[in-house]
Amino acid sequence: SGLVLVKNPHLDLMEEDVLYHLDLGTKTHNLPAMFGDIKFVCVGGSPKRMRAFAQFMQRELGLAGAGEDVADICEGSDRYAMYRAGPVLSISHGMGIPSISIMLHELIKLLHHAKCWDITIIRIGTSGGLGIEAGSVVITDTAVDSSFQPRFEQVVLDEVVVRSTELDRDLAEELLACSRDIPDFPTLIGHTMCTYDFYEGQGRLDGALCSFSSEKKLEYLRRAYDAGVRNIEMESTAFAALCGVCGLKGESCRFHLH
Amino acid sequence: SGLVLVKNPHLDLMEEDVLYHLDLGTKTHNLPAMFGDIKFVCVGGSPKRMRAFAQFMQRELGLAGAGEDVADICEGSDRYAMYRAGPVLSISHGMGIPSISIMLHELIKLLHHAKCWDITIIRIGTSGGLGIEAGSVVITDTAVDSSFQPRFEQVVLDEVVVRSTELDRDLAEELLACSRDIPDFPTLIGHTMCTYDFYEGQGRLDGALCSFSSEKKLEYLRRAYDAGVRNIEMESTAFAALCGVCGLKGESCRFHLH
Repeated sequence: SGLVLVKNPHLDLMEEDVLYHLDLGTKTHNLPAMFGDIKFVCVGGSPKRMRAFAQFMQRELGLAGAGEDVADICEGSDRYAMYRAGPVLSISHGMGIPSISIMLHELIKLLHHAKCWDITIIRIGTSGGLGIEAGSVVITDTAVDSSFQPRFEQVVLDEVVVRSTELDRDLAEELLACSRDIPDFPTLIGHTMCTYDFYEGQGRLDGALCSFSSEKKLEYLRRAYDAGVRNIEMESTAFAALCGVCGLKGESCRFHLH
Repeated sequence: SGLVLVKNPHLDLMEEDVLYHLDLGTKTHNLPAMFGDIKFVCVGGSPKRMRAFAQFMQRELGLAGAGEDVADICEGSDRYAMYRAGPVLSISHGMGIPSISIMLHELIKLLHHAKCWDITIIRIGTSGGLGIEAGSVVITDTAVDSSFQPRFEQVVLDEVVVRSTELDRDLAEELLACSRDIPDFPTLIGHTMCTYDFYEGQGRLDGALCSFSSEKKLEYLRRAYDAGVRNIEMESTAFAALCGVCGLKGESCRFHLH
């Protein structure tokens, strides 16, 4: 049916669902009226960038109000920022797996309550590239953990639940086809490695608080490349796993800065 | 000597250290002049709360400008917000271990570059209480993971480094002594459990995307209580581990909402 699945029977028994970190709720807001026509959700780390993206979409789609400021739908919360431009929702998720997990939980419940269907969700942002040209865009086919495995381990109470991190292959190909019309943006499909830390987790020799050998770092990054990893960031495994669990067509698309 | 330790020999060889997510750097800013006299650093999740805390400290310390707005020192970055009130620095860290890890890495290097000494760092904020009165303040003696162990596992490249998560016992006692002068704030010292997720990780039956049994949840929380856990949040193990590694006198102090 294309509806967003929430596999928690408790949810429909609740009198009210407060999406606390978004400052929205089923009793305080008419979610179907506010969001029922949403078709695309774009998520990214930085609130300012997600506002700029919403403004860009307004112009691209030729919407009324283009060029003007857009309102933050989650204004009452300083955890995340949310903007819309026609059928496109643009939301920030902060940095790291726990931060994107909280946002995705509440976003997916929002889409469920709003009775949205056929939703495509795309994560956009920057990442560190691996053996690719600076300025390249990496479209993720599979997110992998720091052992290059396509899995996301979620601790539920004291139990480890392992989830798949494959993303929508058709959507990845569709995005790659779009990129062919845009010159000067080398675009490729590859694995994206997701770490729990920016400094030590990604082997930033010069930035970390403790040191480690540069030989070990090079050997590790070489193994990552050989395993198909083309970029490194901090949210993709959780994003892929939660999209998969809820039947969302999801894709991660990262711009490699340098 | 009370100086902030950074165990990375690469750091002093660098021509410039860009504290990217704070929008500060050793070449663009005179860090000793800006921060050399800082003695206390308070960190918390929400940028708005950390601004309010800086304004509160300005009034409490009777500083000039009290009652006026405070400037965000990291204004050029939308990742974190930083304010100062005399010798007190107030910084937001977002939600979850990866987010606080990035901030602490850059903050600790900032304190090192600024030649700060005898720094006390306190994490403040809200948490979920466990078997304690609503409105209680929990001062953490030890942060524990979801298996109730006093450890923080940091993946450095593909190696797991295990770090201790004990906090400064004297500082905890000192804070507890302060609390005795304030009526209506039940305050206690206990273990704080740190999870990687707010919904599934903390067993929020009604909020999670997938379901699990309420019996299992109760049994788990009972075991946590028996292990000494009095509150649950999402950053304490990384905070305790990084303070420990760098010789910072650190404490975590959380207000239990309900």
